[in-house]
Amino acid sequence: MASNEMKLLGAWPSPFVLRARIALNIKSVEYEFMEENVLVTKSDLLLKSNPVYKKIPVLIHGERPICESLIIVQYVDEVWASGPAILPSDPYDRAVARFWAVYLDDKWFPSLTAILMSDGEEAKKTALEQAIQGLDLLEEAFTKCSKGQNFFGGDKIGYLDIALGSFLGWVRVIQIMANVSLIDESKTPNLFKWDQDFSGHDAVKDVLPETDKLVEFSKFLVAKVKGSGTK
Amino acid sequence: MASNEMKLLGAWPSPFVLRARIALNIKSVEYEFMEENVLVTKSDLLLKSNPVYKKIPVLIHGERPICESLIIVQYVDEVWASGPAILPSDPYDRAVARFWAVYLDDKWFPSLTAILMSDGEEAKKTALEQAIQGLDLLEEAFTKCSKGQNFFGGDKIGYLDIALGSFLGWVRVIQIMANVSLIDESKTPNLFKWDQDFSGHDAVKDVLPETDKLVEFSKFLVAKVKGSGTK
Repeated sequence: MASNEMKLLGAWPSPFVLRARIALNIKSVEYEFMEENVLVTKSDLLLKSNPVYKKIPVLIHGERPICESLIIVQYVDEVWASGPAILPSDPYDRAVARFWAVYLDDKWFPSLTAILMSDGEEAKKTALEQAIQGLDLLEEAFTKCSKGQNFFGGDKIGYLDIALGSFLGWVRVIQIMANVSLIDESKTPNLFKWDQDFSGHDAVKDVLPETDKLVEFSKFLVAKVKGSGTK
Repeated sequence: MASNEMKLLGAWPSPFVLRARIALNIKSVEYEFMEENVLVTKSDLLLKSNPVYKKIPVLIHGERPICESLIIVQYVDEVWASGPAILPSDPYDRAVARFWAVYLDDKWFPSLTAILMSDGEEAKKTALEQAIQGLDLLEEAFTKCSKGQNFFGGDKIGYLDIALGSFLGWVRVIQIMANVSLIDESKTPNLFKWDQDFSGHDAVKDVLPETDKLVEFSKFLVAKVKGSGTK
């Protein structure tokens, strides 16, 4: 497929955009990456392609936009069904992977960002506790999902690997900025090993943002969010 | 399948539980409905089956719990793949249906409930405007999804029909309690016609809660929520 048939509207620091990139890499799909700087302005193409949320990522396949990162990953899996499967083949395993992916977006990632963004030590401490509790749940989920292999998806990267793995850059940022330990060899040995396998994977390693660059961006983002008086 | 192999933990007023019931009806799957009174207490089976959220619905298939209504609907569709399809067959149509289903849960239903639950006329007015804007978007989405047929899913009830249709009882309650018009023959003619077709469908009509009963329940719920000082 020619790259002009597939466009991804995204931004390099976004974990949600990263999900789409990893899914496209797994399926060896070429695409044009169109960097948006959504903190400054939004392109006409973005506003037209995602009028409801006006948010990245948007995958544009031909003329048709697909929005929301987890929906994009499922779309890519279904359209390029002949490539390596992303969703598990068993319906129950799919339901479990979908459950944890929704948990990550609804509960866990908000706790993670609140470690950086909250005002006051008490709120930061609560956020840290919630993020660590979430990692304990995911450590346990890994045992059940991976069935003794390297990834949540078994012997290959799957849906939940992508859903959680897209946040690893921000986990590293928060470990540095807040001087905390999140994914840890002693407390979460499964996730610690998984992090190494995932981050070094061919579909991932070239699109994971560099930690130093992400740390600099996070300083800018925190200043902007706190400066605007919103959370 | 014998009913003792399939249990649904639910409560009759819950739109999210209704989704699971409609999906099971579409596939003609027998199940035991186990009514939970979550406003008073939660059963040990619920706490054990959904330890993360402790929320209904939970479908228990054999010994395995499946949580989250939209995930349950997809699970039912995938396990009983030989029955009438619930998700569209085309990957793009699936992505569109999934997009609107997430929109309903994340944005639209919170606006709908805020019409009843908000304190102050200004907040209620804002919620009503947001709910109506959402219905305008869904009215437009209906044209694209239905392709000239009776349902979002085309000639049969599909994923988005279930996702939105499960809220119809609460739409009626809010129309009565707040004395507003939401799904309206003049403003949303597609949704008005669709409401009639959906509500009268064999898989739906016997599980849709009666409006009078739901109105009474809503009075109790509003008093309870407002009395506890939470929203």
